[in-house]
Amino acid sequence: MAETKNYTVTGMTCGHCELSVQEEIAEIPGVTAVSADHTTGAVTVTGEGFDDSQVAAAVDEAGYSLS
Amino acid sequence: MAETKNYTVTGMTCGHCELSVQEEIAEIPGVTAVSADHTTGAVTVTGEGFDDSQVAAAVDEAGYSLS
Repeated sequence: MAETKNYTVTGMTCGHCELSVQEEIAEIPGVTAVSADHTTGAVTVTGEGFDDSQVAAAVDEAGYSLS
Repeated sequence: MAETKNYTVTGMTCGHCELSVQEEIAEIPGVTAVSADHTTGAVTVTGEGFDDSQVAAAVDEAGYSLS
């Protein structure tokens, strides 16, 4: 069953940063939707079967980190 | 003859912003090199036959503005 999880990412400064984070997280198998807001650091991920460590790895790959 | 001109761009917050500005300016005919530094706003453009209005338009297209 699909679930939505909220994360906080540090280091995003603009819309390009949001896109980078979103693109990496979207590659996680099972993820069906992701949004990121650089003004708050809020990242919302929806999908099935993904876990926090995968999200953390994707955020790291994009050049940012979970707070 | 090639010339190098310096500009100051406001609004760049990260390396993605630098890339966006660089990519737009690089499309101006005659431009052979461009660098951008988001920490200072400094943008350096080298080439032949380009003018300030083309640089301003490219910066605007990227979503930023000359100061």
